[in-house]
Amino acid sequence: MPELRKDPIVGRWVIISADRGKRPSDWDSVRDTSKNVGSFCPFCPGNEDKTPPEVYAVRTNGGSSEWKLRVVPNKFPALQIEGELVRKGEGIYDWMSGIGAHEVLIETADHSLELPDFSPSHIESILQIFKARIEDLRNDTRFKYIQIFKNHGVAAGASLEHSHSQLIATPILPKRVVEELEGAKKHFELKERCIFCDIINQERGFGKRIIQETDEFLAIAPFAARFPYEMWILPKRHYSHYENMEIGLYLKLAEILKDALLRVNKVLDSPPYNFVIHTSPIQEPATPDYHWHIEIIPKLTKIAGFEWGTGFYINAVAPEQSAAHYREVGI
Amino acid sequence: MPELRKDPIVGRWVIISADRGKRPSDWDSVRDTSKNVGSFCPFCPGNEDKTPPEVYAVRTNGGSSEWKLRVVPNKFPALQIEGELVRKGEGIYDWMSGIGAHEVLIETADHSLELPDFSPSHIESILQIFKARIEDLRNDTRFKYIQIFKNHGVAAGASLEHSHSQLIATPILPKRVVEELEGAKKHFELKERCIFCDIINQERGFGKRIIQETDEFLAIAPFAARFPYEMWILPKRHYSHYENMEIGLYLKLAEILKDALLRVNKVLDSPPYNFVIHTSPIQEPATPDYHWHIEIIPKLTKIAGFEWGTGFYINAVAPEQSAAHYREVGI
Repeated sequence: MPELRKDPIVGRWVIISADRGKRPSDWDSVRDTSKNVGSFCPFCPGNEDKTPPEVYAVRTNGGSSEWKLRVVPNKFPALQIEGELVRKGEGIYDWMSGIGAHEVLIETADHSLELPDFSPSHIESILQIFKARIEDLRNDTRFKYIQIFKNHGVAAGASLEHSHSQLIATPILPKRVVEELEGAKKHFELKERCIFCDIINQERGFGKRIIQETDEFLAIAPFAARFPYEMWILPKRHYSHYENMEIGLYLKLAEILKDALLRVNKVLDSPPYNFVIHTSPIQEPATPDYHWHIEIIPKLTKIAGFEWGTGFYINAVAPEQSAAHYREVGI
Repeated sequence: MPELRKDPIVGRWVIISADRGKRPSDWDSVRDTSKNVGSFCPFCPGNEDKTPPEVYAVRTNGGSSEWKLRVVPNKFPALQIEGELVRKGEGIYDWMSGIGAHEVLIETADHSLELPDFSPSHIESILQIFKARIEDLRNDTRFKYIQIFKNHGVAAGASLEHSHSQLIATPILPKRVVEELEGAKKHFELKERCIFCDIINQERGFGKRIIQETDEFLAIAPFAARFPYEMWILPKRHYSHYENMEIGLYLKLAEILKDALLRVNKVLDSPPYNFVIHTSPIQEPATPDYHWHIEIIPKLTKIAGFEWGTGFYINAVAPEQSAAHYREVGI
């Protein structure tokens, strides 16, 4: 059973998932970045029995093997769905049982395709499945937050090559999420405006950090980007919750996400990357002060001692410069 | 000139050091982890003119080429020492000139040696140079914090193989540091006790997370370790500032640091690692609520989308298990 443990100094929670525990010698493989291109793929058609039973699927004609998209529980979940949320103290330490959900969305039956290869309507299906999974999982009131993310490439933490994204539902609001919510709330209290709406307006005025703009979405290099070529995609209309968007917007989002990832691949020669959906806590009502968005982080640099110690990031590419490079490439 | 930019939502500062800027095509090398084993080393004896002029050195007989340890400004500094601390706003954004210091401590003249290969007294010299550099740089009141860290191995962010550590002086207190100081202060206000002293006492009582204990220092696997095999070294006597320890303690620290890194190398087959000194702001007086310490992070895993989104870490090795593995190896 995984555990949640709280750092007694800064209050950060950590998942200790020791069922996935390894002997020290198992860690050698971490240094070899070429290892995951194996011959057997549990996500390919025909190997459906190698994953836990699916919780959601999209099929072409209702045929049982002709799936286009599948959602399955992670075979090695970071958090576990069964059990009670138990809280415990041990002297000055705080401890909680590792309750949660950890699901994998297999984005295609075709092992050779990557997310930006898909048609906008296929990407729309993926984005709507994220929405559907949130709407299902929020019925379980043990869960407070759902993190949707994609790790692409070994250096970005992907352990399987076949295109997939993931979702983890957590029983507490993560620290990083609380910081963002509180920062946005502070701005709203001061100005009666959403800080993300302010950012959108200001960036549209400046222009220099804009990567792409459509009727409904804006892609920018953020002013204080932590990483070279970091990109954010924001809906121009204010929505605090990803899952609450007007239904037609998921296709528009699919279009700009495809465009964004094509630019990342073209400018940076198909790098490993992470994308992360930042959204509001699933049990809370819509709010005027927070604004969901996507953050895309091409994995180009290593996190080193200075970053671990200070939480400061050193970014060797000005966001204005990365936005210009992204704009210049033809898609 | 590097810039400091503040994220308007969470208040995190970022260093945009675009003088180190690269064209997109330069990033390819990031994916090749074997590239830094070049033939030319600017840190080797005979190449002293390839680094900026040294700011500190230890020599065997006062001879000019026979140095044992050298401190030089970083040739590609993240922050720049010359200039005025200018603050500027741009709409909702905050901006500051990138003033600071970035120095490299070349830990040995011998390219083939690593830190744990050195004698305790050689490591003591390194630890005392950290102290001396803090005592010198704190006279520059533009600097508020000094981060001392070591990146060992390419995967941990080292760009040169020759054994070295680094120091960055920043003009603001980093967010991560403030969080730790505030967390410790809160505990002190509640209990009139230092939280780190409490941790030390509690861990000595439990035993299960202790890796090594000497008269003056304790090495533990922290209760809420973010990373597999993370290790902390704490002085058993309370000191808020690294540079304020009784002078004899630096040798004792050298001994346990050598022991710790030998254990890391033995258990994990010489992995890349970072170590980071967490200490109090240099311009502030000694305090009963904060306790300096070292955090050692073997680089075994990748930071992925879930961590970027939530600030939550998933650790697949229980600290009790890693402490046992560390204890078991003979040194």
